[in-house]
Order: sequence, then C-alpha cells, then structure tokens
Amino acid sequence: MPTILQIDASVRAFSTTKPSRNSLSKSLSNGFKEQWLAKLPNTKFIYRDLSKTPPDFISEDWVSAAFTPESQRTEDQKAQLLQSDTLIDEVIVADIILLSTPMYNYGMPAVLKAWFDQVIRINKTFSFDLNRGDFPLKPSLSGKTMVLLTSCGEFGFEIGGMRENMNHLGPHIKVTSHYLGVETFFEIGSEYQEFGDERHAKSIQKAESDIAKLVEQLTSRL
Amino acid sequence: MPTILQIDASVRAFSTTKPSRNSLSKSLSNGFKEQWLAKLPNTKFIYRDLSKTPPDFISEDWVSAAFTPESQRTEDQKAQLLQSDTLIDEVIVADIILLSTPMYNYGMPAVLKAWFDQVIRINKTFSFDLNRGDFPLKPSLSGKTMVLLTSCGEFGFEIGGMRENMNHLGPHIKVTSHYLGVETFFEIGSEYQEFGDERHAKSIQKAESDIAKLVEQLTSRL
Repeated sequence: MPTILQIDASVRAFSTTKPSRNSLSKSLSNGFKEQWLAKLPNTKFIYRDLSKTPPDFISEDWVSAAFTPESQRTEDQKAQLLQSDTLIDEVIVADIILLSTPMYNYGMPAVLKAWFDQVIRINKTFSFDLNRGDFPLKPSLSGKTMVLLTSCGEFGFEIGGMRENMNHLGPHIKVTSHYLGVETFFEIGSEYQEFGDERHAKSIQKAESDIAKLVEQLTSRL
Repeated sequence: MPTILQIDASVRAFSTTKPSRNSLSKSLSNGFKEQWLAKLPNTKFIYRDLSKTPPDFISEDWVSAAFTPESQRTEDQKAQLLQSDTLIDEVIVADIILLSTPMYNYGMPAVLKAWFDQVIRINKTFSFDLNRGDFPLKPSLSGKTMVLLTSCGEFGFEIGGMRENMNHLGPHIKVTSHYLGVETFFEIGSEYQEFGDERHAKSIQKAESDIAKLVEQLTSRL
C-alpha cells in the first residue's frame, strides 16, 4: 500500500461551514484524498499544512551545516538541520507527493518555497560531483510520483496560453521536484478564480473530473 | 537626485574579511552602490537585508485585511498590514530598486518571495477592475527602474541557453516587478559558482564590467 505525503500551501483554510471562503486548492486536494481512500482505505496519508506550520527560512548557518560532512557536525549544526531532517524523512517515505497550492504573484507562496529550500539538500536529497561535468547534481531519491493541484486567479498559464510566460508555479515545481526523486508528474489546476464567472465554475468542474480520472488511473495500477 | 531601494536576499553576509565566503550577489550589489555613489554622492540609499529582517509570511488574516476597504479595517487588521505598509512605502519612494539575489532551487530564496507577497497588494500597489476584461489587474505605481543582480550555481539560464526552461528567477522577478511600477528592467548575473572554475571567474568579471557600464549609463541621464 502506498504512502502519500499531502502538502497544502494555501493561507486559506479548508472548511465546509463557509464554502465561499474555502481554499480551492485545498478543496481539490481533499477531493483527491477522499476518492483515493474510497478505493484504497488502508493508504497511509502524512499531512502537512504549511500555513499552519511554516518552515523556517534557511540561513547562513543552515547552509554551512548542510555542507559540513555529517560525521563532523557540531551539536549546533545538527540542531540547525533538525527541521530539514524531519521534512526530508516525510519525502523519503512517500510514494506519492500530493501537493496543493494557489498561485501567488505568478509563483509559489513563500511558505512552499521555504519548504523546497528545506528539503532539497546536498548529500541528502541530491549529490554533487564535478566528475559529472556540466551536470554535477543528481537526485538521491527516485521513483516518486507528484500530483500537483493548483488554483490560479487569472488564466491562460498552460503551454501555448496567453500567460504561459508568466507561469512560474507548475513549471518551477516540476523542475525542483526532480531533486526529490519525482519521476512521474501530474498537474491539474483550476483557473479564473478572480473572475468568479461561468469559466471559473467550468474550470473547477473540469479539475474535479480530471482528479477523479487520475485517482482511478493511479489506484488501478496498485 | 534619485532614491535607490537596495534589497539583498542572500543568506550569506557581505564581508571583506573572508572573501571566499562572501555573498556574490551582495558583492555585485555593493559594487553597484560604490560606483554609483562615486558619481552621485548625494543619492539616498534605503537598505534592506532580507535575511537579517525576513518578512512575515502572509496569512489568511493578512489577505482578509488587504481585501477590506481601508476605512473599514479593524485595529487588528491594520496591525496585520503594518509590515506590508512599511515595505510598500520603501517601494513607493524608490526611483530605482536595486535587487540582489542568488538562485536557490531555480528560483527566488523564500525570503524574497515573502517580500514580494508583502508588497504586491490590492488597492495599494495594484488595482483590480473586471471592467478591464481579461486583464483586470493594473499597477498603481509607474516609472520605476529595477536593477536585478543575480548569482547562479549552474549556467545556461539565458534565453536560448541549455537551462532556459529551468530559470524561474529573473523571468519571475521581471513579471512580478511590473506590479511595483517597474517599467525599465536590467538584469546582470554571474553564473558557474558551483564549478569554481575559469568560467566562474570570467562570469564575475563580465558581471562587474556590465555593472560599471550600467552605472555609467544610468547616472549620465541624471
């Protein structure tokens, strides 16, 4: 049975008592989880709401500790990396990373970037070797699947879309997820949130329908 | 005389006593400043080191306060936005935003994204109006220049370069800076930091030379 690391990045809560103020990305993620558990009830979910427990920004001491070989780290240096260790352990045990996030200012919310900066770590999630020439970085993990669920206020961020060049959310996450051992990447998103119109309603419907298909596809393999 | 808002985002310090551990992006920014002041000594610089005073992550309460009309905000809501007010005031008075940053995991350090999330704010730095059709957002500020100075560990992030599609630093900052009233954008960067080779040394030399030319170009207009 797979382990799924579910990470939510929106500042908004997911609450069924005030549906109009629900986080859309969290709603999509919750829908994925409910449908998944209906098919494979014994799946282990690890849950992290980044807005409730925001990762620390990395610091000069953090970088210095990360570059120090493990056996030579001082107690202070080990303490610097404790949070990173915990977050990375969650990635290591995950077969699927279920990541939900809104687009803020054309990219990740800062809390999500803080998470990536904590979990992409030399000699832990990637190795560095100049013998590899112009491509010295190599992920240490492999075989993971990422399911990215997004919510955008505007629209046209897809390949060929009118705002493709403004999209630093999904494409950025896809690039960085490589260093977490992600080899299979799915992205489903809703758009038009700022417009609150028929296009928005349709976009959510399509995302929900795509999520149902993806759950079917992924669970039928197991 | 112009006002320059100088923002540094690296976790590393700029210190001449340990040159090998200096922040490269901060060194470039400091070089820009020194050369600028040699030409226009009365220029006012506002300085912010984001690693030393990291902005708060925005929260659900922050978003709620930002969307509440100013005259209707509670004292709590005003307090939520105080930091944002301060950071935006610095942007408002700046003619030039001198932003230095390393690339972390193919994008901005999280502290820099936290800064953008604090300063791009509805009814403050941009307005939103559905009467504008599919482009409802419009910056409230205008006429600003951004000078972006970067340091990358790898290379080939330029247009047409081998890692162009992995670059979510400069292109992302350029998109977001539009909503701060930036109309003229310059980017100068050093690359190859991880390789520490001749290419790295040449890249720094070229960046320093380009900065000298840019200072000349910008100050000669004034």
